[in-house]
Amino acid sequence: MKRNFKMTIRYDGTRYQGWESQPGVEMTIQGKIEKVLSRMIEEESSSEEPVKLMASGRTDAGVHALGQVANVHLDTTMSAVDIQSYMNQYLPEDIAIEDLKDASERFHARYNALGKTYRYTCYYGDSKPVFDRKYVTVLDQQPDIKKMRQAAEYLIGTHDFKSFCANPRMRKSTVRCVDSIEIEKDGPYIRMYFHGNGFLQNMVRILSGTLLEVGFGNMTPQRVGEILEAKDRKLAGPTAKAQGLCLMQVDY
Amino acid sequence: MKRNFKMTIRYDGTRYQGWESQPGVEMTIQGKIEKVLSRMIEEESSSEEPVKLMASGRTDAGVHALGQVANVHLDTTMSAVDIQSYMNQYLPEDIAIEDLKDASERFHARYNALGKTYRYTCYYGDSKPVFDRKYVTVLDQQPDIKKMRQAAEYLIGTHDFKSFCANPRMRKSTVRCVDSIEIEKDGPYIRMYFHGNGFLQNMVRILSGTLLEVGFGNMTPQRVGEILEAKDRKLAGPTAKAQGLCLMQVDY
Repeated sequence: MKRNFKMTIRYDGTRYQGWESQPGVEMTIQGKIEKVLSRMIEEESSSEEPVKLMASGRTDAGVHALGQVANVHLDTTMSAVDIQSYMNQYLPEDIAIEDLKDASERFHARYNALGKTYRYTCYYGDSKPVFDRKYVTVLDQQPDIKKMRQAAEYLIGTHDFKSFCANPRMRKSTVRCVDSIEIEKDGPYIRMYFHGNGFLQNMVRILSGTLLEVGFGNMTPQRVGEILEAKDRKLAGPTAKAQGLCLMQVDY
Repeated sequence: MKRNFKMTIRYDGTRYQGWESQPGVEMTIQGKIEKVLSRMIEEESSSEEPVKLMASGRTDAGVHALGQVANVHLDTTMSAVDIQSYMNQYLPEDIAIEDLKDASERFHARYNALGKTYRYTCYYGDSKPVFDRKYVTVLDQQPDIKKMRQAAEYLIGTHDFKSFCANPRMRKSTVRCVDSIEIEKDGPYIRMYFHGNGFLQNMVRILSGTLLEVGFGNMTPQRVGEILEAKDRKLAGPTAKAQGLCLMQVDY
C-alpha cells in the first residue's frame, strides 16, 4: 500500500530552471528529486512506476527555498528517516531534504497550503556581499525604507493583484490576500518579508521591484495604491531579479 | 609622494589558488587586487610602476577570509573612499574591500600583525548545508565536542608546533603561542575558533583535523599532548579540508 510523505526542501536555485519538471529539461528541482526517489523505489521493489512529487507551488528559475513543502505517495517499507537519509545522500549538494515524515493519506502540499512566506533580499553598501552573492540583489543606490513601508501599506489586505501578475491572460482569479509585508534594514541588507494566502506568477518579484522604485524616489508611496487599482501590469515596477527571492515557509 | 593604505579584505577562496600572486598563475587573490590597483594608478598618472600588496600572511588555495588585512604604497591623489569604491567595482564578485584607509608610512600588514583569529567550520546533521556548502566541511559522524575541548587544552600556550606544520624542512622557529581555542556547537554546525600570535603552514587545518580525530574517538584527548611533545607531523591527524577555513581577523 502506498504511504504519503510530507517533506520540507531547501535549495539553492542558482543552477536550476525552476522547480517544475518539464520534458527535455534536465535541471529542475522537482526532476532531480523525482529521479532519486524513482531509483530508491526501483532498488527496493524493482517497480518502475513513475514517482510524482506535489509541491506547494512552483518557484521560478533562480529562486531559492528554505522551506518548500512537497508530498509524494510511495510504495515502500522504508522508514521516513531512511528515506530522508537516502535522498540527502543522492541529491546534488544544492538540494537538501530538511525534514520528511509520514503524512495523512489526504495531505496535499498545494491544496492544503494556507499561507506562504517569501523573503526578498537586497544589499547596498560600500563593500560587496561576497559569501551570499548568489542570494541577494545588489542595489546601486540606497532605498528609503520609510517610503517603502508607506507604499507597502497600500498592498496589505485582500485585493485584485492583476497589476502585479506576470501572466496577462490569467483566467483564474487574481485576487489574493497579503497579510503582511515587513521591511527590515540590517546593516547593508534590506529584507522584505511577504506573507499571504497565495501569490500570482512573479508577484513577489514585481511587488519587490515596485517597492524599490518607491524607495529610490522614482514613484510616490501613494502611486502604489493607484497601480493596484488600475489592474495593469505595465504601470507597476520591474520584476526584481530571481536571485534575491527565497520561499521561506508554507503554512498548513 | 606615495601614501600607505591599510585595507581589510573579504574573499570566497573557492575559485582561487590561494592568496599569493605567482608568475603564470592567474587565479590568486593578491594578483587580482594588484591588477585592479595597477590599472587605477595607470588611469590616474599613466605610471606603470608595479603595485605590490603586502598581506598579514598567505592563505592556502580554497581558504576564505572575512578579515584579511593588507597594505599598499600608492602614488595617488584619490581619496580612500574613492579607491575602495573603484576596487569594489572592478574586483570579481568574490573579492571585496571591506574597509580602506590611509595608514602611517611605517605600517606593515605582516610585521605589525600581533595576532590572528581563524575559524574552522564543520557540519553534521540530517540535512545538508545548501547555502553555505562551499564554506563548511561536512562530517559523516557526530564528533564529541567535550573531548575536543579537553584535547584543545593541551594546545593552549607557547609551544613548538612542529607536529602541526606541513613543512618538514621549516628552518625558522616553529614555536608559536596559541591563546585560545574555542569550540562551539550551533545546531548542525561545529565551529572551532583559533587565536594566536601566528600560525605555521597548514597549522590550523592540521589542528582542526587532529581535534576531529579526538572528537570521533580515534584518539584520546591526552594523545594530543603527546603529539605536541613528539614534534613529528606524522603523528598528528589529517589536514582538514581548505573549504572549512576562514581568516576572521588580524590584530594590530
